[in-house]
Amino acid sequence: MTPAKYDVLGIGNAIFDVLVQTDEAFLAAHGMSKGGMALIDEVRATAIYRDMGPATEMSGGSAANTIVGLANFGARTAYVGKVKDDQIGRLYVHDIRAAGVAFETRPANDGPATGCSYILVTPDGERTMNTYLGAAQELTSGDIDAAQVAASAFVYLEGYLWDPKNAKDAFLKASTIAHDAGRKVALTLSDSFCVDRYRGEFLDLMRKRTVDVVFANEAELHSLYETSDFETALKQLRADVNLGVVTRSEKGCIVASQEGVTAVPAYPIDKLVDTTGAGDLFAAGFLFGLVRGLGYEKAGRLGALAAAEVIQHIGARPQTSLKQLAQQSGLPV
Amino acid sequence: MTPAKYDVLGIGNAIFDVLVQTDEAFLAAHGMSKGGMALIDEVRATAIYRDMGPATEMSGGSAANTIVGLANFGARTAYVGKVKDDQIGRLYVHDIRAAGVAFETRPANDGPATGCSYILVTPDGERTMNTYLGAAQELTSGDIDAAQVAASAFVYLEGYLWDPKNAKDAFLKASTIAHDAGRKVALTLSDSFCVDRYRGEFLDLMRKRTVDVVFANEAELHSLYETSDFETALKQLRADVNLGVVTRSEKGCIVASQEGVTAVPAYPIDKLVDTTGAGDLFAAGFLFGLVRGLGYEKAGRLGALAAAEVIQHIGARPQTSLKQLAQQSGLPV
Repeated sequence: MTPAKYDVLGIGNAIFDVLVQTDEAFLAAHGMSKGGMALIDEVRATAIYRDMGPATEMSGGSAANTIVGLANFGARTAYVGKVKDDQIGRLYVHDIRAAGVAFETRPANDGPATGCSYILVTPDGERTMNTYLGAAQELTSGDIDAAQVAASAFVYLEGYLWDPKNAKDAFLKASTIAHDAGRKVALTLSDSFCVDRYRGEFLDLMRKRTVDVVFANEAELHSLYETSDFETALKQLRADVNLGVVTRSEKGCIVASQEGVTAVPAYPIDKLVDTTGAGDLFAAGFLFGLVRGLGYEKAGRLGALAAAEVIQHIGARPQTSLKQLAQQSGLPV
Repeated sequence: MTPAKYDVLGIGNAIFDVLVQTDEAFLAAHGMSKGGMALIDEVRATAIYRDMGPATEMSGGSAANTIVGLANFGARTAYVGKVKDDQIGRLYVHDIRAAGVAFETRPANDGPATGCSYILVTPDGERTMNTYLGAAQELTSGDIDAAQVAASAFVYLEGYLWDPKNAKDAFLKASTIAHDAGRKVALTLSDSFCVDRYRGEFLDLMRKRTVDVVFANEAELHSLYETSDFETALKQLRADVNLGVVTRSEKGCIVASQEGVTAVPAYPIDKLVDTTGAGDLFAAGFLFGLVRGLGYEKAGRLGALAAAEVIQHIGARPQTSLKQLAQQSGLPV
């Protein structure tokens, strides 16, 4: 196996975030499921945006947030995702490249606009996402560069890729190339509603070892195994995947491998502002620990640290150097 | 005089802010004057943006920030400024209307894109702005609705309007309409380099009573009178304008009227993050005090409070309710 050129290559829906702080009444008035990600069409996007307050915009997208977090820690990263060549798409391309991520996916020249997520942040810090996939719908297996995938130690994929019509082909192609090259494949389950839409396929990916590592939060894990009992779900997860990492908000995370189960505490925070990107940044820190060979416990701590940074401000991308934060906390980076 | 429909109508360059936290070396490498606003063309905009890190975007523009701040306090407001009907322009229109501001300026259908400012925020919290005026260049006196101006207790204008080719005609038209209707006109000097470009014209506006109230920071005041002595400059200001309000960062502000001079302290802050919008939000609080008839001292305190809110986070628009903040501080709103 040749040395990897990239530590992690991420593939995901490239989504521009439009964030606003609002109240519970807004969610109720628009029939939103708090804490979830709902797919919306253009008509609903227009209706929601019309009623939203003044917003802050920044690049987002689950796997992209993770990859930017990894780059921020100092990892060598690449990203594959589809925007349109429009004003917002150009902001998106700028941001991911400016973060130090290799990004070469050709933008769409026609078709729908760059995808957007209208993210409502309530006073308790919870985020509720309404995503218009737009150009992210246009991602196909043709966007996968086999040489780039084969040159990446990890391929990181988001479950959200099951929503656009052809992206799962890109996902499966990347997984095959990665495994043929002796690389590892990680998947985040993304969202409990997403798990509900694709439960059978996600379980297949795990049981057929199409993926080696799975990230999930508690709600996603419970949805996956359709049980409210955490221990039952965890036991099934251990049987189904080589490495399962379950985040539990302020309770920290559980790393479940064939060898055993490791619990890692959450990182202390001053004030919860916006949970957008918490899981994405946890995955960034954890994967950074994995690619540096630091062991599950330290990987979990790096994940907790990155998640703690991102939930203390608006938006899903780090606003400070995660590498420096880790050093200040005595963690190896 | 009929009762005013609006407390304040603002006219300014409608600019979308692209903000990034960076280091001093970036400013030096790009030959930027720290703390200033430089006008840039498309070529330089491209060169600066290419080298900038991942950014956060939100609507900006000096007078617009002030008007949004006023609306946030609970004032009845309107804004006049020119964007293009492009993706960013539509974000801009959304944001100002969502803030509760009446905004009816027709967007440009062709010509340059919506204006952008590339704002570099250094670790000391200072911001350095590089502004591509874009569609803001297209504002003309035809965009001024005489009835709307006449129905506004205050018209608030930014000195930056002297930069685009026709906006000063809009400015002068609005001032004439306002005074004919018995209303007041306020001007912010905007930027010390801007004052340097238009010193003679700005002094004319003051001495001919085209404007009744002038907002300036220390650097702008020193530039206006080409003196490094604060007391000398202040004395001249008092002779030239009915009401002069000078902001002095952490030293608070000086309100200089024909009756006397009032000093108001700055509002305490926890951590300076980004000074973008400090002067704009000070003006918002001060004008709110004026339109509510609270007197100069309380108006100064409201200005200080609003400035303190905006400098403790990234971006020039308030992230919390200024009305509630004022109430919590025992200030009348």
